[in-house]
Amino acid sequence: MSEAPHLTFDLDAPGMSTGHVIVPRGADCEALSLPVFSLNKGEGPLILITGGCHGNELEGPIVARRLVEWLPKAQTCGRVIILPVLNPLAVQAWSRNTPIDGLNLNRVFPGRADGSVTERIADAVSRQLLPMADTVFDLHSFGPTWDFLPASTTHPIADADLMAKTIRMAEAFKLPMTLVWECHDTPGMFDILVQNQGKVFVCAEFGGGTVGSEALLIYEAGVRNALIALGLVEGKAECPTFRQRKSTQTLETLSSDELKSPARGIFEPRCSVLDEVKQGDLIGILHPMDSLSDRSIVFARLPHPLSAPSDPARMSTPTRGWRSLLDRSNSEDSATRRRRLRRVN
Amino acid sequence: MSEAPHLTFDLDAPGMSTGHVIVPRGADCEALSLPVFSLNKGEGPLILITGGCHGNELEGPIVARRLVEWLPKAQTCGRVIILPVLNPLAVQAWSRNTPIDGLNLNRVFPGRADGSVTERIADAVSRQLLPMADTVFDLHSFGPTWDFLPASTTHPIADADLMAKTIRMAEAFKLPMTLVWECHDTPGMFDILVQNQGKVFVCAEFGGGTVGSEALLIYEAGVRNALIALGLVEGKAECPTFRQRKSTQTLETLSSDELKSPARGIFEPRCSVLDEVKQGDLIGILHPMDSLSDRSIVFARLPHPLSAPSDPARMSTPTRGWRSLLDRSNSEDSATRRRRLRRVN
Repeated sequence: MSEAPHLTFDLDAPGMSTGHVIVPRGADCEALSLPVFSLNKGEGPLILITGGCHGNELEGPIVARRLVEWLPKAQTCGRVIILPVLNPLAVQAWSRNTPIDGLNLNRVFPGRADGSVTERIADAVSRQLLPMADTVFDLHSFGPTWDFLPASTTHPIADADLMAKTIRMAEAFKLPMTLVWECHDTPGMFDILVQNQGKVFVCAEFGGGTVGSEALLIYEAGVRNALIALGLVEGKAECPTFRQRKSTQTLETLSSDELKSPARGIFEPRCSVLDEVKQGDLIGILHPMDSLSDRSIVFARLPHPLSAPSDPARMSTPTRGWRSLLDRSNSEDSATRRRRLRRVN
Repeated sequence: MSEAPHLTFDLDAPGMSTGHVIVPRGADCEALSLPVFSLNKGEGPLILITGGCHGNELEGPIVARRLVEWLPKAQTCGRVIILPVLNPLAVQAWSRNTPIDGLNLNRVFPGRADGSVTERIADAVSRQLLPMADTVFDLHSFGPTWDFLPASTTHPIADADLMAKTIRMAEAFKLPMTLVWECHDTPGMFDILVQNQGKVFVCAEFGGGTVGSEALLIYEAGVRNALIALGLVEGKAECPTFRQRKSTQTLETLSSDELKSPARGIFEPRCSVLDEVKQGDLIGILHPMDSLSDRSIVFARLPHPLSAPSDPARMSTPTRGWRSLLDRSNSEDSATRRRRLRRVN
């Protein structure tokens, strides 16, 4: 019934070319045309940059569009394919998941050609764009309800060589934090598909809350730094300034570091992301809404100040509970220091 | 059928007393008990401080709770009544309006005893707490989807004397911005009810986006400054530091300053709130989601980066289109300077 996913242009053409990847229509919606920008400057690394996987994380699409502006002049070799918006249906709805089928695009990779629209998007990207790439940068953010800092992230990878390459790539962004983030059995993630093909995948998490112009400069600098490290762009990588500091550190968080709110209430943060705290420090107070004086104290950093028992309260401040996967680094040139892997399988 | 709204304690008792204001039950829900904190230190100004009018603006309830902590020791005279959460139903749902009847509490004042639950809340507050106050601070914020700065705001008031008193009170917060905000015919607002009684009403708009610990310190300092100006608390009022600056300015915005997005798209801000821009400066770019190269340029600062034609894009950067109601001031001690009213009816 439906056509196969395909590209409307020659991805191998030299120089800058633009077109669409077509996600075929299905029973649930018409075909989608996703704008694609291809910059082919010959031999070199092959990079796929995607944004807009989740529709309420708009930093990625904006940074991707900004890349399209300056990269054609700056790129000296290799190939970069930019897909600013993976999921236009979710972006149009400003929702994490696709409204039509309720699916999270980052849980359905590699997708299905005969599936619902989210699965068809994953299938089209997996088959039409991913094969040409050896490295993928997927530009996410924590969305409007989380307080987070500009970070490049990866999950633990069983293949130690690929893990080391991935961490080096993530650190090359030189964002305030490089985070190795344990997640248990989350099938269908884009990174798992890419890593299973032996490729490097870095998930950029470009902050949270509202989208600001100063923050966008940091995010853009992160991607530029990574492209410089890959040799695609000339220049000197520099740590962007975040909260008056030029620093970067590599941290690991485990699922067991997550704290859940013990009750419903209004969470009052008493420290900020990146503050160093130790066990027992007060990092926030949970105010019950229906009491005159009772208060519970929780040692958690919550995504937004209204917490419910079911909300995971992921730690986003370094604590003793976080272990360095690599030696922690705080200086701008630390990325060049030799690092020791501690917890790579 | 239902009892009348009432207090569970003696609001006139000296010192600190706590209890509830009871919002009677109705056909739509059971009675509500709203915690109230009363600090009676004798003669002096009579202040009512409220938060949580809109359920997704949690800065107010948090600051109100913090006041309850330190005010009993700091307050030297007068009376302060604190109602941290006006609308617990909306706060529990983390929604602007009350889920049960869909109403915006700040559009139904003075409320109705036989109305739906939002109207009954307004009625209880209007009748049980407002009569004792000569000044009201209602602690709002711009919620999670707006980028805004800590500000004290008022709307234009027909009574010139009350307008001048209100602006002086708003400026006493010494927040980065005091904003006189034109709004057309918005019946049922809390401030209109209070001002019609000849009382001073300041609406604090405590920023937007996620709730952070550093921002909370600024908001709390704003309320402390106002209480110092009223003589209720001893100490020296100080401009809090916001983005490395200690400054305050009084600005006016008109309804005609609002810009609406000309099309759906992803808004990329190119300047920040408080940046000074002039007519024609680029303050943002609207990226269409379905185009390869077309772009519209809009001179707007949008609430969040996804804009729809129906979204009002209220200017939150000073432009030539904004006129100073008072001489603009940028120094910390400017609040003591004499000011000239320009546009008070």
